[in-house]
Amino acid sequence: MKLARFTYPYSGKESYGVILEAEGGKILDLTKFSALTNINVPSSIRSLISKGLKIEKIFRKLTEKSSGGNIKRAMVDFEHVILKAPIVNPPKIVCLGLNYKDHAEESGSPIPREPIIFMKPRTAIIGPEETIIKPNFVQQLDYEIELAIIIGKKGKNISISEAKKYIFGYTILNDVSARDIQFKDGQWTRGKSFDTFAPIGPYITTIEQINDPNNLRMITKVNGEIRQNSLTKLMIFNVYEIVHHISRVMTLEPCDIIATGTPSGVAAFMKPEPKFLKNGDVIEMEIENIGILRNIVVER
Amino acid sequence: MKLARFTYPYSGKESYGVILEAEGGKILDLTKFSALTNINVPSSIRSLISKGLKIEKIFRKLTEKSSGGNIKRAMVDFEHVILKAPIVNPPKIVCLGLNYKDHAEESGSPIPREPIIFMKPRTAIIGPEETIIKPNFVQQLDYEIELAIIIGKKGKNISISEAKKYIFGYTILNDVSARDIQFKDGQWTRGKSFDTFAPIGPYITTIEQINDPNNLRMITKVNGEIRQNSLTKLMIFNVYEIVHHISRVMTLEPCDIIATGTPSGVAAFMKPEPKFLKNGDVIEMEIENIGILRNIVVER
Repeated sequence: MKLARFTYPYSGKESYGVILEAEGGKILDLTKFSALTNINVPSSIRSLISKGLKIEKIFRKLTEKSSGGNIKRAMVDFEHVILKAPIVNPPKIVCLGLNYKDHAEESGSPIPREPIIFMKPRTAIIGPEETIIKPNFVQQLDYEIELAIIIGKKGKNISISEAKKYIFGYTILNDVSARDIQFKDGQWTRGKSFDTFAPIGPYITTIEQINDPNNLRMITKVNGEIRQNSLTKLMIFNVYEIVHHISRVMTLEPCDIIATGTPSGVAAFMKPEPKFLKNGDVIEMEIENIGILRNIVVER
Repeated sequence: MKLARFTYPYSGKESYGVILEAEGGKILDLTKFSALTNINVPSSIRSLISKGLKIEKIFRKLTEKSSGGNIKRAMVDFEHVILKAPIVNPPKIVCLGLNYKDHAEESGSPIPREPIIFMKPRTAIIGPEETIIKPNFVQQLDYEIELAIIIGKKGKNISISEAKKYIFGYTILNDVSARDIQFKDGQWTRGKSFDTFAPIGPYITTIEQINDPNNLRMITKVNGEIRQNSLTKLMIFNVYEIVHHISRVMTLEPCDIIATGTPSGVAAFMKPEPKFLKNGDVIEMEIENIGILRNIVVER
């Protein structure tokens, strides 16, 4: 299933729900549904994941126990809500660098033998349609489409074969990067940690609906022009190997986000010259079975 | 004042309190004191800081309103509690690299013109006397004493002159580093992010008691041998400049920890040869007006 977090524009009230694809893509507002039926549901996506619950089980129970009328009453159109980042305060955001051979090559870097990681702060997170702020002292703003793993269960030293059990689902993360600062520093963190530099969403698709995360199409468009077009099967370390490697270093916790690296086609290495992001640019990132994450750049 | 978080060994109950230096260094258990006097206090150091409260004010109110008997009853000896890391789940831990000229020089790195940062995950935090685990595949384990800023107030684009208002207090952070992994990766994050690689404590000293954070003596001893002996006034970017620079990148939040870099004397660059940490080594880090952070290395 796909999960979305959203607010109602008039009341400002926050809720979350599941996308009902059979209903033409309406959202079943789980907070509303719970209030109508007096059946308890976790209060947020964060709480759902932290409690180790499966949305599929909760949804089955809810629909078995209640009338179609209540489901209808708790359904909401996308036009009537504002989508938000599915998770806002993850314990950590760990990102892989150089995890696609063609991206390592375009950047002139050697192929890593073990995952190279850095972290982004949670204050960088924004949701779909929210604005990526380009500070006026940043010259070289870039995008990176990444499949992001949402951890579902606490774990350390997780084997590759057990890794799937620790994953709740997947979303898209745009690893927005100020290349001038990233390359000047040598260390990548500062150039990738500005507020708004981690758009995520639009949904979290659970592992029940993404059977093979290692074979998903991913496409980035800037102002409609295709810039990145690749497949997650081209990752150097696949999703399960990544969970294994990172969990050898640090304990993974529910709601941790792991961004798995980006394929070639970023602005910095375009020929004949870089095509960095500028004020007003529209970035659309699509990963198969997750959705389209769309953000606009505003210089300030 | 100095704040400590601790547990009682028999009940396992967690609490926090202020160090009463006049009473020969006993701790006033604020949870207990609150229960005895029916005066509400924040439930934790985290809650105190997040609410923007000053412990000095709370303490004054408490002692004015209550009898000396209740203070005595809520006092506890250090030997009867187990000190813990003063903060366990900071929103983020941001660390500076190469912020002392002599350390940049010993490592053969250029002096940075702007702060170079990386992040450590909260899962790396341990408290005083807790064990630093050296994974058996790490060859080159090292220590780094650092003055750590505890942020007290949310802020962005903070000016140098306003920076002090955003600081709650200071503690010690040992930026434990696996040099083999750090230098192999080029990016520093992985080698510095292992569980137990961020000992902090023993106390948080509030800004009321540390008037000038930019002139504190700091000393690291390994098995009694002095390895680092410096002053925070030798930082390239001082405490207020650091808060300014980082807040230009990311929003700072209450309980964020900023580690301000280490002076020379780390194991990796000792002459004639490195003296990396090994099983059983005892590390003591002292910063003036904060205390001594002591941890033992165990190989596993």
